[in-house]
Amino acid sequence: MSELFDFPKVEFIGGAKGLNFEASKGYNFYNPEEVFTINGETKTMKDWMKFSVAYWHTMDQRMVDPFGEGTAERPWDVNGVDDMTDLDHAIAKVDYMFEFMDKLGVEYFAFHDRDLAPEGNTLAETNANLDAVVDRIEEKMKETGKKLLWNTSSLFTNKRFMAGGATTPFADVFAYAAAQVKHSLEIAKRLNSESYVFWGGREGYESLLNTDTKRELDHIAKFFKLAKLYANEIGYTGQFLLEPKPKEPTAHQYDTDVQTTIAFLKTYGLENDFKLNLEGNHAYLAGHTYEHEARFAREAGMLGSLDANMGDKQTGWDIDEFPNDIYEATLVMYEFIKNGGLPTGGLNFDSKVRRASFKMDDLFYAHMAGMDVYAAGFRVAMKMIEDNFLENIYKERYSSFDSGIGADFENDKASFADFEAYILNKTNDEIFSTIQSGRLEAIKATLNNYIYSVLGSTFSK
Amino acid sequence: MSELFDFPKVEFIGGAKGLNFEASKGYNFYNPEEVFTINGETKTMKDWMKFSVAYWHTMDQRMVDPFGEGTAERPWDVNGVDDMTDLDHAIAKVDYMFEFMDKLGVEYFAFHDRDLAPEGNTLAETNANLDAVVDRIEEKMKETGKKLLWNTSSLFTNKRFMAGGATTPFADVFAYAAAQVKHSLEIAKRLNSESYVFWGGREGYESLLNTDTKRELDHIAKFFKLAKLYANEIGYTGQFLLEPKPKEPTAHQYDTDVQTTIAFLKTYGLENDFKLNLEGNHAYLAGHTYEHEARFAREAGMLGSLDANMGDKQTGWDIDEFPNDIYEATLVMYEFIKNGGLPTGGLNFDSKVRRASFKMDDLFYAHMAGMDVYAAGFRVAMKMIEDNFLENIYKERYSSFDSGIGADFENDKASFADFEAYILNKTNDEIFSTIQSGRLEAIKATLNNYIYSVLGSTFSK
Amino acid sequence: MSELFDFPKVEFIGGAKGLNFEASKGYNFYNPEEVFTINGETKTMKDWMKFSVAYWHTMDQRMVDPFGEGTAERPWDVNGVDDMTDLDHAIAKVDYMFEFMDKLGVEYFAFHDRDLAPEGNTLAETNANLDAVVDRIEEKMKETGKKLLWNTSSLFTNKRFMAGGATTPFADVFAYAAAQVKHSLEIAKRLNSESYVFWGGREGYESLLNTDTKRELDHIAKFFKLAKLYANEIGYTGQFLLEPKPKEPTAHQYDTDVQTTIAFLKTYGLENDFKLNLEGNHAYLAGHTYEHEARFAREAGMLGSLDANMGDKQTGWDIDEFPNDIYEATLVMYEFIKNGGLPTGGLNFDSKVRRASFKMDDLFYAHMAGMDVYAAGFRVAMKMIEDNFLENIYKERYSSFDSGIGADFENDKASFADFEAYILNKTNDEIFSTIQSGRLEAIKATLNNYIYSVLGSTFSK
Amino acid sequence: MSELFDFPKVEFIGGAKGLNFEASKGYNFYNPEEVFTINGETKTMKDWMKFSVAYWHTMDQRMVDPFGEGTAERPWDVNGVDDMTDLDHAIAKVDYMFEFMDKLGVEYFAFHDRDLAPEGNTLAETNANLDAVVDRIEEKMKETGKKLLWNTSSLFTNKRFMAGGATTPFADVFAYAAAQVKHSLEIAKRLNSESYVFWGGREGYESLLNTDTKRELDHIAKFFKLAKLYANEIGYTGQFLLEPKPKEPTAHQYDTDVQTTIAFLKTYGLENDFKLNLEGNHAYLAGHTYEHEARFAREAGMLGSLDANMGDKQTGWDIDEFPNDIYEATLVMYEFIKNGGLPTGGLNFDSKVRRASFKMDDLFYAHMAGMDVYAAGFRVAMKMIEDNFLENIYKERYSSFDSGIGADFENDKASFADFEAYILNKTNDEIFSTIQSGRLEAIKATLNNYIYSVLGSTFSK
Repeated sequence: MSELFDFPKVEFIGGAKGLNFEASKGYNFYNPEEVFTINGETKTMKDWMKFSVAYWHTMDQRMVDPFGEGTAERPWDVNGVDDMTDLDHAIAKVDYMFEFMDKLGVEYFAFHDRDLAPEGNTLAETNANLDAVVDRIEEKMKETGKKLLWNTSSLFTNKRFMAGGATTPFADVFAYAAAQVKHSLEIAKRLNSESYVFWGGREGYESLLNTDTKRELDHIAKFFKLAKLYANEIGYTGQFLLEPKPKEPTAHQYDTDVQTTIAFLKTYGLENDFKLNLEGNHAYLAGHTYEHEARFAREAGMLGSLDANMGDKQTGWDIDEFPNDIYEATLVMYEFIKNGGLPTGGLNFDSKVRRASFKMDDLFYAHMAGMDVYAAGFRVAMKMIEDNFLENIYKERYSSFDSGIGADFENDKASFADFEAYILNKTNDEIFSTIQSGRLEAIKATLNNYIYSVLGSTFSK
Repeated sequence: MSELFDFPKVEFIGGAKGLNFEASKGYNFYNPEEVFTINGETKTMKDWMKFSVAYWHTMDQRMVDPFGEGTAERPWDVNGVDDMTDLDHAIAKVDYMFEFMDKLGVEYFAFHDRDLAPEGNTLAETNANLDAVVDRIEEKMKETGKKLLWNTSSLFTNKRFMAGGATTPFADVFAYAAAQVKHSLEIAKRLNSESYVFWGGREGYESLLNTDTKRELDHIAKFFKLAKLYANEIGYTGQFLLEPKPKEPTAHQYDTDVQTTIAFLKTYGLENDFKLNLEGNHAYLAGHTYEHEARFAREAGMLGSLDANMGDKQTGWDIDEFPNDIYEATLVMYEFIKNGGLPTGGLNFDSKVRRASFKMDDLFYAHMAGMDVYAAGFRVAMKMIEDNFLENIYKERYSSFDSGIGADFENDKASFADFEAYILNKTNDEIFSTIQSGRLEAIKATLNNYIYSVLGSTFSK
Repeated sequence: MSELFDFPKVEFIGGAKGLNFEASKGYNFYNPEEVFTINGETKTMKDWMKFSVAYWHTMDQRMVDPFGEGTAERPWDVNGVDDMTDLDHAIAKVDYMFEFMDKLGVEYFAFHDRDLAPEGNTLAETNANLDAVVDRIEEKMKETGKKLLWNTSSLFTNKRFMAGGATTPFADVFAYAAAQVKHSLEIAKRLNSESYVFWGGREGYESLLNTDTKRELDHIAKFFKLAKLYANEIGYTGQFLLEPKPKEPTAHQYDTDVQTTIAFLKTYGLENDFKLNLEGNHAYLAGHTYEHEARFAREAGMLGSLDANMGDKQTGWDIDEFPNDIYEATLVMYEFIKNGGLPTGGLNFDSKVRRASFKMDDLFYAHMAGMDVYAAGFRVAMKMIEDNFLENIYKERYSSFDSGIGADFENDKASFADFEAYILNKTNDEIFSTIQSGRLEAIKATLNNYIYSVLGSTFSK
Repeated sequence: MSELFDFPKVEFIGGAKGLNFEASKGYNFYNPEEVFTINGETKTMKDWMKFSVAYWHTMDQRMVDPFGEGTAERPWDVNGVDDMTDLDHAIAKVDYMFEFMDKLGVEYFAFHDRDLAPEGNTLAETNANLDAVVDRIEEKMKETGKKLLWNTSSLFTNKRFMAGGATTPFADVFAYAAAQVKHSLEIAKRLNSESYVFWGGREGYESLLNTDTKRELDHIAKFFKLAKLYANEIGYTGQFLLEPKPKEPTAHQYDTDVQTTIAFLKTYGLENDFKLNLEGNHAYLAGHTYEHEARFAREAGMLGSLDANMGDKQTGWDIDEFPNDIYEATLVMYEFIKNGGLPTGGLNFDSKVRRASFKMDDLFYAHMAGMDVYAAGFRVAMKMIEDNFLENIYKERYSSFDSGIGADFENDKASFADFEAYILNKTNDEIFSTIQSGRLEAIKATLNNYIYSVLGSTFSK
């Protein structure tokens, strides 16, 4: 492969080159070929974690913000410009994408249709542009063995979607959205995409005063049914995923969080056709931690895929920061492991470098740092599970439901009258004496010890 | 009736006494006997709005906060103290409650079991105390014709519930909760309570690290099924209500908001047994407006009852302020009217006076102000609906789904292939030309005109 | 004047055309020639309120958001595009600006340098472009009598400012910022701008880990001193204004809110050279209400100018919505009136239409609605002040400081020992009996009555 | 010393007993006698860090919350009750306090007057109660050598302070506050308190509608001057500290954050009499990180003391959690070290155990965990500073101000005209080429490496 980037191929060095991340230019924790066993299944770290590069952020993101123009310097720029109205340029970028993945040792990628190619004046023209780039992607996939984690349609960038894609009040726009997704499903089929994602950036409202919420929700539910019908028709068997987010760009999005999305799916009988694609920053905007969303999706059997990004709990918009918090990485990886990994999903870098990190090298370091912190979190969580750290806490705390009246209840043998007979004359002190401490202060200190111990040994070797 | 309060009976004065609310001591907008017709049903304002006094806030609340002792001065105090360990005192307070309702012209009230009477050393003793107060309540209800909007059990105040009531890890505490609710259902039956409420203040978690969330949710779902079984067994037919709140006192409550609660109910097959009791301040804590929660509950057929309170969108905890915002009152009353009112619910004042409003008169003014602003909102919303103000906006904005491809879609006659055929060669400009403006700036200005016009006329008569 | 817009000249109609704001196309509350007296000074509403059109939002804003392209349709578009790289087009837009102001009856406007003209390849070229547009503006000002409320330099849009303008770590960028502001001050002098504004959009940090906060603050303070020196040198005597905002685009801006900005000014001895330009949405992002910021700026003698915009207290970024909340308008206007108006400031529409309000008419309605709600708030506040509504509340509540030990204290005649001697043997009950209720519930109800009464009469005439 | 607690004396074990914090019952990172050198000054860890036990949380806190009664089990309870109306009991608790400190190896403590003793019916009686407990404290201090970090007066718990202490509208309440602080200063003098703290829990407003903010601020400023006069009069030379908090219990407190408090102090000429006592959870409520507040207080020369607590950035009220976040501990300790430690302050545990951690052992573990995470953060920050990790980043990033036009500017040798001459004809590309990347992604990854490496070695020995 030609050398499009002036950056070495990143290898696992395991802490051998010291603390300075930039100087060491290697992975301290991500060791792609190291094997791990989860639920009796043994695979390499690479095959468990399935990191994925996001085309929109990595290839197209210029780091524009609402108050300023883009800052990015990229080697695919022509005269300092990444001209996405030029189809030839769009095709040329594909090679950079695959070499970027190769440098990092990443096996997967993801894209929206509009990330790849310019729009034409009709959907027919737009599809033709898109297909030209997809042709090149297909070639590169065959050449390199890289795989598509998921693809999706952007029903939010073009101004026609100002009031929604599948929830737009305007039938022609709705027709466009349907036809656009139709073609994306065809591409998913063609490129063997593991999942197909719907993120409803404009599916929500700016104000209830001009929004017929019920009619809009009826529409989008039916839209999803038609999408599933069409996928079945063409034999596309990838997992459908919904991606919750509470707001931004709209004042209120319908798929607010995991539970709201589950309510929607169950209301419209779609719960067997979809799983969820979660994102940390979206969780924060909904008032949750990322591990909360991962836990509740997992326990509902709906954990499909994860975005490897994070936000700032004190910032009210989506910053899509590359992950760097070992606490969050550990607790999300805990849910990941309990889920048996993500059979049809992975860890997609829906993340962008900070606006002042405008050099191409920053983009390498950012992905490396993100992979390393999630690999570190995976290692800590594996050790926690090996020791039954949390499992023992749960088991002991709820043990009164393993026998006696508690077990009777769990086995459907206790009524309200039984409970009353059991408890009516017990004294308050007797009852209180059965309560155990929650012990959170000590548990959190032990969690810190796990992090320090599992990860510190890397540097003390 | 003896005069327990030095405050006149509050009557409708319709703005006749000027702008000073304290001086006028009357309702400007709440006219209990005025009749209104909704969906062809004609009733008095009193019978539509069903305001309810909350025993806990109005009778028991001392305005303690986390940094200071109570400030309230109440005529039922004995030597400056409202000694709730004294059963005789607890019984004596009932008469004050009924006279307070009489002074205001309120027909309904609501309570938790623990609001009424002291706990004993066993549940048997506690139930006996409670029954003694309920005896007096029953007498007063017969005497005055006042009605119980809803009752509930406090599964959060006593320290035994530190880790939950129906989600506690401790079987004896769970048994206590079940037996306690059993008795509350018996009281609901006895007092003919229109609804029965569950608010899960402790049903959630402080941390995932010590919480088996799945086992807890399985428990509470089964708890609700046993409650329903018992209600059926004793012939109690009131509506069961769940009250969503995202947090406080826990870091994360299970019944976060309307949609989360619907997801829970559907997951466990409970959706036909429950409706929802909403609260404005809880909506804010979940990142929603009150009208959002009311709208989505209504459209799901789950709008059971409403708390007449409000919060402060810039305050991160539950302040249970008496309502005073005409925008919120108008938009919530809009949903109320579209719901055909609240057949088994009402407007319960889960509201407390500010801590510096410590005089008994403040408690009267606060309820009067709350009733007046909701009555004002009702009047504005009735006029909006009479004029089809929002209905016309919706109708026009979505009109492209009333014919052509839009109607075909709504009538299940359009597939993705049909949409593609329809749109593939339309130009972007053609499609964009079908989009109408959202017009929000002008719509909000018209809403202001409705408020000024409908309510201002009261003072210009 | 030629007719560039298909919209009638907006006149005061005083509610004569009913509730539908769009249909009536007139002001219900903004009556430019009606006279009002504040502190003995009598002026027309137009001269008190000094509404100002913001060039950036009204002329340049395309309603791009982080997830989508612009939607705006504007009559100055050429082939559907507002090409701001074309200097001739930039000059042509000036006429639209002045006709827009004329249609609305607005006397003032405001701009950043970069709003007006394209950048060149050097600052020399950029200044030449800018001057060409300023020439046209100067002609139109002379022709129409319109005035410049304030101008400013954009030290945030161009990528060179990614890490700050006056706080950039890079000396060449700093030099550029200084030279750019130099030229803006020359324009302020030339166009007789009433104030000159500094908004530090990039003056803050993304992370403390790479920011020498002390060195940056020393730099910006010295930058302001040099700016003042230069203004003095050229005889520009307009008021310098700082505009607080806590975050966005940075994670943390230095001029967080009113008090932070005052601390900065006093720390560096700049407090006599600056006043403040406040914005409602910025107040929310800092956790304050707009009236809070206005009150504290006023009482510090620092209230310079106001942005007429609002936000959404449940949205975590700056939405710059046109104002529509009568509560906020009333309470901000109360501070405005107590300040004796804004001698060197005004009410600038730093506001943009919602993204779905993409038609040119929406831009008219939005400004009209904003002017009307602030004029309505002004009328309510004038009536409140005429009645001494709040003044009487304050006077009575603090009256114990008007005599006795309280007055001694205010007159510097009481020491801690005096207080001890006075209070040591008073009983708790005696002391408590001197406390008055805060009465907030009733006060808020009276405020509602003021709003309904003052504004409702418009529609009942 | 008698054994009042069934818990061993906690010693430094340095990771020797493995990961389970409860099982190991020792400090992994807090080694009291280990010496460290900061700015050439060498002291033991114990003398640098000066941990302090907070009487109110550790001795008095029952873990009541707004929805439930206390849960705490404490060995000083009599019949399960901590009866703080009993003076003998209050005195008896002092011995527990000192033995608790002894077990942990903590040298300092802090208290509010009202934490120690019951109130009487007059201030004279209240002072007498307080003095009786202070007598016992003084004896124990002499006996054990423990020291008072700071004391303060509670001007917020008693209902008389419902509308403020030094900002109350009621002169008698104000007199009470002044006399109460007078006595607290006498106690500070007597017990040789290193600092004296003012936290204005009620000094703020619930609403602007009933608050004369200017008069209140004038009052409190004069109150502080009288306090300082009295301290001088009695020869008390401890450092006065203000503790910022934005809200709770009030809707808006005057001392919102570091900058607001500095603005207040400078406005009233008090900046030389006060420093600041910071708290992490208060920082979050104001929208800041703890390290932000520490940085800005330090750079203003106002960093007086620190609370060792933390909050939850997704919880809107003050949870006063014991610290457990190694990132925050590291970055706050970085500022601490750059400040040369806290000569008149320390690290006070204004922290409480979670409500379900109701056992006495939890209180030990919580303090141990808090000490260990701050000692760990201290170790990481010491290593970072030893390596000039951040200092080198700053130095390189701002190096363009070390020579040329940048240095001229810093040396007051450059005017706006000089900058213009320097930059006017440089091209955009030339200027942009001087900008360095912000490199945050890599810097954060290196910070993680520091944490893992410095702390992990403890467990791999």
